[in-house]
Amino acid sequence: MTGLFVTVEGGDGAGKSTQSRLLEEWLVAQGRRVVRTREPGGTEVGMLVRDIVLHHRGEVAPRAEALLYAADRAHHVETVVRPALDRGDVVIQDRYLDSSVAYQGAGRVLGRQEVRDLSLWATEGLLPDLTVLLDLDPAAARVRLDADDKPFDRLESEKAAFHTRVRSEFLALAEAEPGRFLVVDAAQPVDDIAAQVRGRVTALLS
Amino acid sequence: MTGLFVTVEGGDGAGKSTQSRLLEEWLVAQGRRVVRTREPGGTEVGMLVRDIVLHHRGEVAPRAEALLYAADRAHHVETVVRPALDRGDVVIQDRYLDSSVAYQGAGRVLGRQEVRDLSLWATEGLLPDLTVLLDLDPAAARVRLDADDKPFDRLESEKAAFHTRVRSEFLALAEAEPGRFLVVDAAQPVDDIAAQVRGRVTALLS
Repeated sequence: MTGLFVTVEGGDGAGKSTQSRLLEEWLVAQGRRVVRTREPGGTEVGMLVRDIVLHHRGEVAPRAEALLYAADRAHHVETVVRPALDRGDVVIQDRYLDSSVAYQGAGRVLGRQEVRDLSLWATEGLLPDLTVLLDLDPAAARVRLDADDKPFDRLESEKAAFHTRVRSEFLALAEAEPGRFLVVDAAQPVDDIAAQVRGRVTALLS
Repeated sequence: MTGLFVTVEGGDGAGKSTQSRLLEEWLVAQGRRVVRTREPGGTEVGMLVRDIVLHHRGEVAPRAEALLYAADRAHHVETVVRPALDRGDVVIQDRYLDSSVAYQGAGRVLGRQEVRDLSLWATEGLLPDLTVLLDLDPAAARVRLDADDKPFDRLESEKAAFHTRVRSEFLALAEAEPGRFLVVDAAQPVDDIAAQVRGRVTALLS
């Protein structure tokens, strides 16, 4: 028995946490064991790294940023994700290597293949069984983020052109691997999105 | 005018800080501008990373460790080393990519070429003009480290076999690039070592 690795991707404000939670609740109700986690920050070491990449007040060199995300990923996959998959659990994860390719590869212009290779080295080649891409226009996402009272982190506070590059890259990644990705219009009602995600997960589990 | 990039390598207890300081004092007396720095931890971001790799109490996955060192290096080279070299300064640095290859590549058995490639990506290919390898038998280094009262950090507390692999790898790296390396027997008196280092630096500066 082997588990199922589902990642949820998209810009901030696209509804990743909400959809991850709804999928977890539904799977648990079906009697599945679920590990819901995230990157960066899914481990103790990862929380220290997350603090640097998202909350450091000064500059962080772009290559350093990409390497910090990869470090968090290496530790998280080795200590959390692979053990859970080996137990046969479903892992539902908020952000994974596609975020690095979109944010550092495209957003920071470090190159898609190089950033992807970094993640594949970090994880010894672990790819998700399913990646749900919650696609949302950055302007609409901004309205959602402005509505809560949390301050913007280092990446959220990047300008519109950055977030537009990130969104385009996510869509290009999905187009390149249609078998792995489910692209969902994140402007739809929450329950409609959840139903589409459940449909795909059901097909994978049966 | 371009600067000179000198790195000092070797196991803990080999005398890297002492030799770096003596070289700095001598160069400053000659009227040269010197930046003396180190990895990990030569920047504010680097100090946060150093805390994780050297002082975290729990496990750190080996690939995560290698990626954290590379992240520290990327930030340090971009914000400290390259600007200093561009100003024409001499940079004297305690540990650089050869340490990663020796400790993570050989010590952690992640592979020489992969760890080296990681550092070259992090630094956009920056190699030192001169690397001084202070070579010392790990048992002799241990005696020196036992003599001070600082607790061992995560890497210092690795067992003898680890430090033997590290030493062999440093020597293999020096043999592969004789033009870049100066290998010095670190069991010699401090002043004798310093004279050998000054001789090589003088040749490079003239």
